[in-house]
Amino acid sequence: MAGMPAGDLQLTPESARLLAFLRDEGPRTRAQLAELSGSARSTVAARLEPLAAAGLIAAAGGGVSSGGRPAGFIAFQPGARILLAVDLGATHGVAALTDLAGTVLALEAADIDIADGPVAVLDWVIEAAERLRKRLGRPKADLAGVGIGLPGPVEHSTGLPTNPPIMPGWDRFDVIGYVRARIDAPVLVDNDVNLLALGEHATVWKQEDNLLFIKVATGIGAGIISGGRLQRGAQGSAGDLGHVRVPFSARTPRHGDANADLEALASGPGIARALTSIGVPASSSRDVVELAVALDPRATAAIRQAGRELGEVIATVVNVLNPSVIVVGGSIARAGEHLVAGIREVVFGQSTPLATRYLTITESHAGEAGGVIGAATMLIQYLLDPRDEVHR
Amino acid sequence: MAGMPAGDLQLTPESARLLAFLRDEGPRTRAQLAELSGSARSTVAARLEPLAAAGLIAAAGGGVSSGGRPAGFIAFQPGARILLAVDLGATHGVAALTDLAGTVLALEAADIDIADGPVAVLDWVIEAAERLRKRLGRPKADLAGVGIGLPGPVEHSTGLPTNPPIMPGWDRFDVIGYVRARIDAPVLVDNDVNLLALGEHATVWKQEDNLLFIKVATGIGAGIISGGRLQRGAQGSAGDLGHVRVPFSARTPRHGDANADLEALASGPGIARALTSIGVPASSSRDVVELAVALDPRATAAIRQAGRELGEVIATVVNVLNPSVIVVGGSIARAGEHLVAGIREVVFGQSTPLATRYLTITESHAGEAGGVIGAATMLIQYLLDPRDEVHR
Repeated sequence: MAGMPAGDLQLTPESARLLAFLRDEGPRTRAQLAELSGSARSTVAARLEPLAAAGLIAAAGGGVSSGGRPAGFIAFQPGARILLAVDLGATHGVAALTDLAGTVLALEAADIDIADGPVAVLDWVIEAAERLRKRLGRPKADLAGVGIGLPGPVEHSTGLPTNPPIMPGWDRFDVIGYVRARIDAPVLVDNDVNLLALGEHATVWKQEDNLLFIKVATGIGAGIISGGRLQRGAQGSAGDLGHVRVPFSARTPRHGDANADLEALASGPGIARALTSIGVPASSSRDVVELAVALDPRATAAIRQAGRELGEVIATVVNVLNPSVIVVGGSIARAGEHLVAGIREVVFGQSTPLATRYLTITESHAGEAGGVIGAATMLIQYLLDPRDEVHR
Repeated sequence: MAGMPAGDLQLTPESARLLAFLRDEGPRTRAQLAELSGSARSTVAARLEPLAAAGLIAAAGGGVSSGGRPAGFIAFQPGARILLAVDLGATHGVAALTDLAGTVLALEAADIDIADGPVAVLDWVIEAAERLRKRLGRPKADLAGVGIGLPGPVEHSTGLPTNPPIMPGWDRFDVIGYVRARIDAPVLVDNDVNLLALGEHATVWKQEDNLLFIKVATGIGAGIISGGRLQRGAQGSAGDLGHVRVPFSARTPRHGDANADLEALASGPGIARALTSIGVPASSSRDVVELAVALDPRATAAIRQAGRELGEVIATVVNVLNPSVIVVGGSIARAGEHLVAGIREVVFGQSTPLATRYLTITESHAGEAGGVIGAATMLIQYLLDPRDEVHR
């Protein structure tokens, strides 16, 4: 993630903390907020004032649908601003406008080709955003931020794509600068797997502080939530499962290369190569998914074996990070239960009992909107969450 | 880590944030603090008042050694309280009193036997604390907290040792309750490797947010700092490197068991078994260290091979967590450069260039006090660091 503070909602930490409480716990009176925060009523009033001025809070009970709540309650207003949340894949793009709670208000999906380069793809994003905004009838000034997920590594400190293997023309392209020149709002960029982890955490597994999201498609990568926070590592390359070497003993004889990494074996193209080698022609993730959906037993067996190979690496990660939930997504996971079954078989057999006793391994159910909900979550954290700084 | 809030210094988040600033950045005037925090002078004064009342801050320039700083500067007073920091190993215990900056003021080390059980060992801790306190001439009321590191797994939510393999009699013993009945202060308990990671981070690598501390002795474990925070995982078992299965291809022929875990191969006793199998009798970490210090080439070769086996597992962790620093400690690491050399050989050969370009792998130089500095760091974070809660 990288962003520009200008255009930020510029909340003080004290106001942001009160807002976070109203977001998480629901409407409260000024008296309740004063008691809960141990502050004077006048102090609470002063901290609420900028939130009210920005439209982020309002009296609950005045609205049409509020159901007769007693007067004096103050409620978070998620509709006060809109966010542009974008998920770009190799061949598919989704742009959505959400509110400040991450609820999708309008969405546009298109077949794009990421290899057309950043200008063509980002121009589609900007035009789609404009269409969506007009559809909702919201003024430009309502847009509080832009979050974009890319299908490749992104340098944490700058937001620049860094040697993205499937994104010709994008290497070190200034995505933030290009979009900001056209949309006047903070722009954040991250890789798609990190955003899928954030989205899954925010929507399905909010109570779990230790979650691993693993995407298996043309590539293999992971997004890591540990201690309640997305972990990017020192250079932003954390979660790179695809380039871990798989133990030789874990593989079927078809895989002779002792130096093969996980992606070469267990990604969509890796499974396609394994199928081709046993006389079932396949060349892409899409081919593999089609065979599996048609219940070809050779395809389902190959996917399960890929799950086992993934499991060999995930078993180590489970011992090291002790997550409570592992969510598996991507096209190969969506082709049936075979991938997750193979992962479960190895992880529950190999990791320590202490690390697996309360471990859930499951498929992602986020669907097409998972990536954009993650992008919205990243923006909401950036714009609204309290930060621990004396000076902000 | 688990603790009891009673006896806490009970700082409000706002006061804690000002204190954190003075701790990190040094003395400032009220006017500077007001400007930096964007608050009114009166607000800053109100937040400083409880810090002054607790003795945690005082006017700088009034002291003998202040060197003529202009009047009006306010400084953190690390000597306002003392902390009891304890590091317990299998056969060795260290108890120290530190100030609120983690500086060791007095220390006592003893040969203990953790297998004597919790009552005998903790009674030594309590008696040592009393001797140290009297040596410093500080009243009991000055002790603000107790931090204890144990050589085994500790359940995060309760502080209870959980099936600790080398600690007979300690399983689910209420360490916190036993100590608190004798010392009236908050008590925190964690495993020793987590504390070694915290201590190394606080003293040597403060600017690095992603650090891995690996201890290689009778057992093998890791403490993980990611995103600037110690990561414990869902049940507190994060960092369990010792029970990861080592790829068969990575081993020398001496290791025939395909299901052997890292600890069976690369710990002190594992290296001793390998040496015994080639006609060099050894049975413990201590034997291995003695042979290595005497420069026995078979011992140094066996330690280097253990480093390679560690490297096979660490290479995966590097891809997954993208740390910037790996610190290797424990008795086997202290026996020479052979262990770290073996780790480096494999990790720099196997992990991805993006993950290793800026990676440092080094020995720990913390020495005997490393564990107690970590215990003090845990306490200081608990007592003084701002927490993100409306209600505290």
